[in-house]
Amino acid sequence: MAKDKNAKVKRPRAVRPKGFRDYFGPEVTERAEMLTSITGVYHRYGFDPLESSAVETAEVLGRFLPDADRPNDGVFAWEDDDEGRVALRYDLTAPLARVYAQHRNTLPTPYRRYAMGPVWRNEKPGPGRFRQFYQCDADTVGSTSVAADAEICALLADTLEQVGIPPGDYLVRVNSRKVLNGVLEVMGLDSTDRRTAVLRTIDKVDKVGETGVRELLGKGRLDASGAYIDGVGLSDGQAEPVIAFLTSKGTDAPETLANLRHLIGRNETGVKGVDELEQIAELLLAQGYGPDRIDVDPGVVRGLGYYTGPVFEAELTFDILDEKGRRRQFGSVAGGGRYDDLVRRFTGQEVPATGVSIGVDRLMAALREKGRIGSQTPGPVIVTVMDRTRMADYQAMVAELRRAGVRAEVYLGNPKTFGNQLKYADTRKSPVAIIEGSDEKERGVVQIKNLTLGARLAAEIETPEEWRAQPAQKEIARGDMVDEVCAMIARTGAG
Amino acid sequence: MAKDKNAKVKRPRAVRPKGFRDYFGPEVTERAEMLTSITGVYHRYGFDPLESSAVETAEVLGRFLPDADRPNDGVFAWEDDDEGRVALRYDLTAPLARVYAQHRNTLPTPYRRYAMGPVWRNEKPGPGRFRQFYQCDADTVGSTSVAADAEICALLADTLEQVGIPPGDYLVRVNSRKVLNGVLEVMGLDSTDRRTAVLRTIDKVDKVGETGVRELLGKGRLDASGAYIDGVGLSDGQAEPVIAFLTSKGTDAPETLANLRHLIGRNETGVKGVDELEQIAELLLAQGYGPDRIDVDPGVVRGLGYYTGPVFEAELTFDILDEKGRRRQFGSVAGGGRYDDLVRRFTGQEVPATGVSIGVDRLMAALREKGRIGSQTPGPVIVTVMDRTRMADYQAMVAELRRAGVRAEVYLGNPKTFGNQLKYADTRKSPVAIIEGSDEKERGVVQIKNLTLGARLAAEIETPEEWRAQPAQKEIARGDMVDEVCAMIARTGAG
Repeated sequence: MAKDKNAKVKRPRAVRPKGFRDYFGPEVTERAEMLTSITGVYHRYGFDPLESSAVETAEVLGRFLPDADRPNDGVFAWEDDDEGRVALRYDLTAPLARVYAQHRNTLPTPYRRYAMGPVWRNEKPGPGRFRQFYQCDADTVGSTSVAADAEICALLADTLEQVGIPPGDYLVRVNSRKVLNGVLEVMGLDSTDRRTAVLRTIDKVDKVGETGVRELLGKGRLDASGAYIDGVGLSDGQAEPVIAFLTSKGTDAPETLANLRHLIGRNETGVKGVDELEQIAELLLAQGYGPDRIDVDPGVVRGLGYYTGPVFEAELTFDILDEKGRRRQFGSVAGGGRYDDLVRRFTGQEVPATGVSIGVDRLMAALREKGRIGSQTPGPVIVTVMDRTRMADYQAMVAELRRAGVRAEVYLGNPKTFGNQLKYADTRKSPVAIIEGSDEKERGVVQIKNLTLGARLAAEIETPEEWRAQPAQKEIARGDMVDEVCAMIARTGAG
Repeated sequence: MAKDKNAKVKRPRAVRPKGFRDYFGPEVTERAEMLTSITGVYHRYGFDPLESSAVETAEVLGRFLPDADRPNDGVFAWEDDDEGRVALRYDLTAPLARVYAQHRNTLPTPYRRYAMGPVWRNEKPGPGRFRQFYQCDADTVGSTSVAADAEICALLADTLEQVGIPPGDYLVRVNSRKVLNGVLEVMGLDSTDRRTAVLRTIDKVDKVGETGVRELLGKGRLDASGAYIDGVGLSDGQAEPVIAFLTSKGTDAPETLANLRHLIGRNETGVKGVDELEQIAELLLAQGYGPDRIDVDPGVVRGLGYYTGPVFEAELTFDILDEKGRRRQFGSVAGGGRYDDLVRRFTGQEVPATGVSIGVDRLMAALREKGRIGSQTPGPVIVTVMDRTRMADYQAMVAELRRAGVRAEVYLGNPKTFGNQLKYADTRKSPVAIIEGSDEKERGVVQIKNLTLGARLAAEIETPEEWRAQPAQKEIARGDMVDEVCAMIARTGAG
């Protein structure tokens, strides 16, 4: 008993779970602006918004994530009292398939929808590996036409340019799962498991290079951490066509397509894939998307298990400095492809679909890296508290300012030290501070202080008297306050 | 073995979990517009945005939900391999307390932040009870001043008016937990559990009325479903002050405050509470918020366990028809209050805080009910496919239209039946369809069809020839297409 009484109450730790993030101020508004910009393009292309629930039944989501290093196949899942096993969505595509299957009788066909929001991945937390991130997707459900795939590629290029990435700084690369499946058929690789293993291996080509892929297709490979990674177990001869496929990019699309045709021979699936790639390339070229913006590249695989036809990836081609100060390419910011079987899982009927997903957080990181975002949210005008019994007067001032559209607030901390109020105004990047002591009140005036101008001196000033002596300060009639503040903000570009 | 082979593959059911929703088209854009409108007011008041992660450790969230009918206290929680027990946030306040405690050395004080996003409640699904919904919050952390509470009430009133609810259609009601605690102290109710039970009981006054509360404070009550709900077990004499408190609203704030003063006598907590309510009422009156907009009302309790001082609730006062066609008041759309101990849970130091949460989905439902929202998102211009080998031509047309800012798309379904293309345009509420068959192509013209005008006739037309004969159709030079479409949309107000 005595022990219990003396035991300290255990305080919860104020930490967020690893792999999650908090976004403050401009990070929130900049992302909102980027999403508005992206969905503006999606809207112009005729896509309609959809927001599905964050939670789905586990069976709806299925198991399509690559490289799951967790027992739950990379999803956050739990038992629900009513619904059985449920999970947080890991992308916006699997939920779209459910929504279309559930509402197909009332939705238009083709159904063109865009969606944006967080998705969750139950990955081992680590540097740069986040467990919640934003995606912004556009998909066309119910069209078999390769024109739908080509359109998605054009949409992706237009979107990247819209958010400030010019041609030359990005490249949309297009490939086809059908061609790859053709290659696997030619090789005689029938087992689904082994095919999946090959797919996941070649998806790592950007990380481990051609030699690494060759080792991983064979016996295995010692990775950078010193751990031995088991290989798929193909012989050198078996691995050869896969490597040939990966490295079949020519100097232009016709040469690449010719290389691929040679590789797949008369395999039906493969031929169909190359034909589709050719049509996509022609459609895009006719619309002016040259190989500097969208190109056929067999090096693109995309890890997700549900793709069935063309696959796309957008990468940023400019260099950045990594955490160790080395130059490297920024890499992929968006990907997608055709997934003709995802709706059929539910309905049993063929429902073709194709789409793209933009990784908004990565895209923002890239733009920030290049200095292409960094919005200046205006800080509020601060009405200082000189006499705490006259709070109603100060509230009336901010109410007038707000009605005139000016962002404003009364200082609500402890008003005892005037210096604290100025420090607060400084932290908030306030353009203007307003001072009304008992003397000013009597004379019907207020002091307005241009903080943008006075910022340099702020650290040295401690009393209201010194403050009043500064050149960036002005005494005006109380009735002129709103007009003067508006003029001051307009003049200095602050606010 | 034979059995396995013949067993059908079990298809997943295309249903979302109960209690969750999908939002389509205008539902998404209307909510986005409302959030922009609300956060515009929050911004003008000097609040900065914050977006915290959806997942928190269970200990961070704590156990503050009222009326939990689930073993997990109303939250969705599961075991994480790295973090132990984690959960989806059930509001935006508990995560704010964590964020402030975690980042207090770098955040300004007072920290004024707004947040918006989904929250999750693990409630028993039922009609009108949703397990994911949007909140939009504003909070001031680090201010002990009642001016901060008064400001939150003013903010709430301004926000409701901004989104289209005039004074008279809403009322912000203000009460104080301190007054209530004073009443409980006067009663000699010391046990925290019993106090909590009393709080939760009086929070039900809107549902069960004064008589219901009296029964639930005593032995218990037979509810509408026929189930017997156990009471708190107070004697009639003990329950009396609680009922007196609940019903102490006078004809104006001074009378209400006098009633409360009488009720709490010299109890220190209670006196402090009434003093604070008086200051809030004075501050708000000085700013022009009369009792038709913000009023003191002891009937407001707010179920959440973490409130420590003033509590607020905004209700819509207009009548709506419920699912059974009966008139009833719409009720609460926002609530909040002061929670001075929520950050202290983490830090051990006093960090006062106050704020409000608007239930965005309920607010939208109310406005929809009153016919005050219902945006007209323009459908896309549809370029029909008359010759599927000329897809590149059609894609070029939409590219031109999009560059001119016109929402446009090529029909990507099966183009065999022209009627299907028109039906699709109809479903999408397209303002204009464009037709270019081989004949038009040869003559360098296109047909543009005003669908807004032609909508009435659409059901009767089946062939391109009939279509061309309609008066709402026009043949123009291909080179004039963009200008003519823009003019047509501008004229009919469509698009």
